[in-house]
Order: sequence, then structure tokens, then C-alpha cells
Amino acid sequence: MSRPRIAITMGDPAGVGPEVCLRALAHPEIPQICIPVIFGDAAVLQECAARIGLTMSASIIPLKTWAQNWKSVCEPSVLDFGLTVLPDLKPGLISAATGRVSYDYFNVAIDAALDRQVAAIVTAPLSKEALRMAGIGFPGHTEILAARTQAPRVCMMQYSEEITCTFVTVHVGYREVPSLLTKERILEVIDLTATALERIRGRRPTLAVCGLNPHAGEHGLFGDREEERIIIPAIEAARAKGHLIEGPLPPDTAFLPWKRRSTDAFICMYHDQGHIPVKALAFDSAVNTTLGLPIIRTSVDHGTALDIAWQGKARPDSLLSAVRLAVKLAS
Amino acid sequence: MSRPRIAITMGDPAGVGPEVCLRALAHPEIPQICIPVIFGDAAVLQECAARIGLTMSASIIPLKTWAQNWKSVCEPSVLDFGLTVLPDLKPGLISAATGRVSYDYFNVAIDAALDRQVAAIVTAPLSKEALRMAGIGFPGHTEILAARTQAPRVCMMQYSEEITCTFVTVHVGYREVPSLLTKERILEVIDLTATALERIRGRRPTLAVCGLNPHAGEHGLFGDREEERIIIPAIEAARAKGHLIEGPLPPDTAFLPWKRRSTDAFICMYHDQGHIPVKALAFDSAVNTTLGLPIIRTSVDHGTALDIAWQGKARPDSLLSAVRLAVKLAS
Repeated sequence: MSRPRIAITMGDPAGVGPEVCLRALAHPEIPQICIPVIFGDAAVLQECAARIGLTMSASIIPLKTWAQNWKSVCEPSVLDFGLTVLPDLKPGLISAATGRVSYDYFNVAIDAALDRQVAAIVTAPLSKEALRMAGIGFPGHTEILAARTQAPRVCMMQYSEEITCTFVTVHVGYREVPSLLTKERILEVIDLTATALERIRGRRPTLAVCGLNPHAGEHGLFGDREEERIIIPAIEAARAKGHLIEGPLPPDTAFLPWKRRSTDAFICMYHDQGHIPVKALAFDSAVNTTLGLPIIRTSVDHGTALDIAWQGKARPDSLLSAVRLAVKLAS
Repeated sequence: MSRPRIAITMGDPAGVGPEVCLRALAHPEIPQICIPVIFGDAAVLQECAARIGLTMSASIIPLKTWAQNWKSVCEPSVLDFGLTVLPDLKPGLISAATGRVSYDYFNVAIDAALDRQVAAIVTAPLSKEALRMAGIGFPGHTEILAARTQAPRVCMMQYSEEITCTFVTVHVGYREVPSLLTKERILEVIDLTATALERIRGRRPTLAVCGLNPHAGEHGLFGDREEERIIIPAIEAARAKGHLIEGPLPPDTAFLPWKRRSTDAFICMYHDQGHIPVKALAFDSAVNTTLGLPIIRTSVDHGTALDIAWQGKARPDSLLSAVRLAVKLAS
């Protein structure tokens, strides 16, 4: 089994990104499951390592030599952008410069993934505010990816060992959800979920679809029969395609412990239907990813945490989980 | 400290009600915290006890002597309706007769509570279907209580040691929720919640109000500004009345472990916003109650479980939790 080469973007240098990248490099499991390549700045990482009493154990590859040498990279490395952000860098203090370099790391990682130089991208957190200061018109990773890849069918997945959810709708208002539910969209999310979970589990996954209304409408007693009109036809179409799938489940009993154990992923109708149980049950281990992209990208589930940046307090758990999931999806 | 007299209605005789009542009577904690009085049938309880190998340890009080003697009841008792449902009773098989007697137990318990003969009612499960067979026009306890007490301001509470939620809306369709949110209704639920939690905790409670939209709208980015228009004005009005309250919280991060520890109750905008985390985190210990009634009533969080009735398999955990909460609310 060859280990996949995984790009880990360092995120905003003023945040916890450098520290969690260093801790991931130092974690014994990571080099066993992949070849991690930090897309970032070696000088920033070394300075951060010195401050928090770590040693950076990785080869340094200058960015300009990457195109010639990427095939031979087979040990933990730092792809060094050498962007000299360091002299003005203050941990915890984002700026146009930190926003700009974090954007650069990610953009080059997307190129590398599209060219199959890396099998996946794992992203440490960047700052929406720093991107804005740098005049970059994207609020975050997801929007940059959407613009760069133009993927027509995508959905968000929140993955953890405890519970995994995918989403028919995400960042829209509560009121708008019902009008965005269609049989086609739900079937699309079921397909994307089944493909991802089959890769993760190595077998055909067991899926469950949540209803929209309390008690999944209780046979039309609550709501506008969205279950009967939209969700059930999507489930039936999915079964006809061979998916192992049940539902529509009453949303409040969908996530009971024994249901979680027998279900590989829950297809959720709206943001909070799935984010509430994921965060309540797996707050420090959930990984965010977008299914349906031409490249694999997973993300930590936390922000830049500027208040604890470069202080030796940041835990790499979420980054480690994101790397593990990227490796599974890339297999 | 005098122990409060608590009516425990036996629920449908064909379900798990008799067994969980017997187990509650036999539990060492119950007679220490209250004087439990099972409103039910002594013959049914004795037959059930014999089948599952328990001894019924309670005095039997014939219903017709209750009015004269209730004041002197100071040990675990069965208020015996003597309705002779037993000859035709088959465990697991509901009927018009079982529906009728379960309705009678509850109705007399309401009379006893309204007359302050008991401090609270705890209800074992009845069957909607059996009530219907008996020609009783109410689907459950909540509707019977509403009709009997005509309380103008009520809200549902799901209580557990792990997490407690109250609800601005409950059994309505997803689509209808936004039009039912008003500043006045939210403030009403905050008031009811604060009163109940102050009684339970013995101090002024810390409350949190959830937003409606993902990320609580992120300052108007998602949704129709329900947070700014309706929820925030209600929170400000509640603060002006002296409540300790925060929000509107992003619903998905509201229920993180450290937030749960610092919050006595969450005010939720809709059924699944609170029922999802309560059932995911406290599936076997949550208690349901209605706040704002002139009497105290708590309920088990499970149904009649006809498939395991009278088999010695039913656990009394939920009934014990419901009794504990009733005692706290009655104090």
C-alpha cells in the first residue's frame, strides 16, 4: 500500500494553523498513513516551533522546485512559499499580508490537487476578515473551491466516528428550506453520500434520510406533506438504484444511540438538523468536507483561534481527524 | 420536610405502565422523596407483579374511600379503581376497555391535583389508539389537561440532568414556525422557563435562547432577520425583567458540552431544535412536562411499548426521573 501524498495548507499564519500543522507533523500516526506536505512558510513554522518548544521534523522544499520534484517527495515535508511574511507577523494579529499568503497556499494546493500531485487537500483555518483585508473576494475555502472547480453537484458532509451527516441545504435561512427541497436534489445528495461512505467504509453503506417536519409529518398531520410529496419519492428512487436506505425518519429520534450505531450517514434537510447533533456529540472530532468536487478536501472544524495563537495551547485533534478522513477518501 | 403526595397514573393496563409503576414502588428512593399513590387497578398490578416475579409493596385504598381518607395517606399506596378490566385483559393488546380505564385514572388524578389532594401527577403511558377505540375525543394527556384546565399560557419542557429545553412552538409543520414567532410568545416561554427552573434549582437560573436561522442569522446574512426583529427584542425585554439570559445563540453551537454545563435551560424556537439534542444526549432519562398549568404534571418519555408489556423487561428509569422532577416542581 503506497501512502497518499496529502497537502496540508497552513492557513492564516497569525492563527493556530502553524501550531496544529507542526503538531500533526510530529504525531506518530500521520507519517504512517500518508506523506504530509505542509503548504506554507518554513520560516513561520520554525519560528512558531521555537516559541512553543517543538522541533520541526520535515524536509523543506522551495516552492520553485516543486514542479520538478513533487514525484520524489516521499517523507513529511514543508513546501516553502518563502513569502517573507515573518518580519511583520504578530501572532494573533491578522492583516492583509496574512490573508494574502493563506490564499496563496490554498490556491497552489488546488493546482496540485487538480494535477494529481497530491491526493487530497486538508485545510487549516484561514480568516475571512484577513481575506477581506487583502482584497480577496471570497469569504472562505468553500467559495474559493466552488469558483476554481465549477463542480455542478456538491454537498457538505460533517464526518465523525460518532455520527456523520450530509446536507440537502446548508447556508440558507430557515424559511427558504422547504422551497429548496426537490426529489432530484435529495437523490443527488444520497448518491454523493453513498459514494463517499462506500469509499470510507469499504462496503455498501447504510443510509438514513431525515424528514423535514416534527415526527416526519406523522402521515401528513404536521406540515405541507413534504415527506410524502418530495422525500419519500427520492428515497424510493434511491432504493431503485440499489442504495441501502431508510426514512424519512422522525428527526428527533433519528440520532438515538442505537440508530447512530447502525447508520453510516444521515441525509439532513437543513443545516441545524445535522449540525446540532454533530456538534453536541462530536464537537472536537468532526471533520468538514465537500462531496462532489473533482478533488478531495477536508477541513478542520475550528477557526483561527487568534486568542491562543502560537502559545502552545492549540490541539491538533481536528486536523488529525481531517487528515485521516482525507486518506480514507483518497484510497 | 414533609414528603409530597404524588399521583402516578398507571396508564394503559395492556402496556408497560403496570410494570414501571410496580418497579417505581419497589425502588428505595421513591418513598424517601414522596408518598407515591398509583391511580390504577390493584388487581391488574397484582397480576402483573405475579407474572414478572415482583411483590407489590403498597397499601390498597378503594376509590370510594379516597375522598374521606386522602389526608391520612402517608405511605406508598394504590388507589384502586376496581374497574374489573382484568378478566378480558391481554398484555400487549389494547382495547376500548383499556383506553377507557386509562382515561378514568387520569381524570380522577386531575381532580385530585386541582383539589390539592396530591401535589403533582406523574403519568405512565396511555395509548392514543385505545382512547380512540373508547370513543374518547382526545389523543393524549396533554390535550386532556388543556381541556380540563383551560390554562392560557403554557409551554412544553423536556427536562434532564444533561440538558433541558423549552419550546416556543411544538407540534406544527416546519413551514409554519416563523409565522408563530412573536416577541410576546417568546417572552412568555422565557417567563415560564425561569419560574420552573428557579423552583428546580433553588436559585435564579441561567437561560439561553436559540436563534431560528443557521448561525442565528449571522447578522442578517441568512433568513428574514427573525433574530433582529423578534428574538432579540424578546431577550431584551426578558433582561429588563431581571432574567439571566443570553442569545440568540447559533443553534448548532448552543448545545456544546461546556455550554450545557453553564446553562440551566435552552429556549428553543421549534420542536426538533430542542428534541434532537435532548434525545441524542438524554434519550433514556428525559422527562416531559407542561409549564404554566394550574397543576404539576410530568410524564415518562416513552410509549406503551406493547411488544414488551408484562414481560419483566421494562425499565422504570424514565418514570423515576419523572417522579423526581415532579417532586422538585412541587417543592
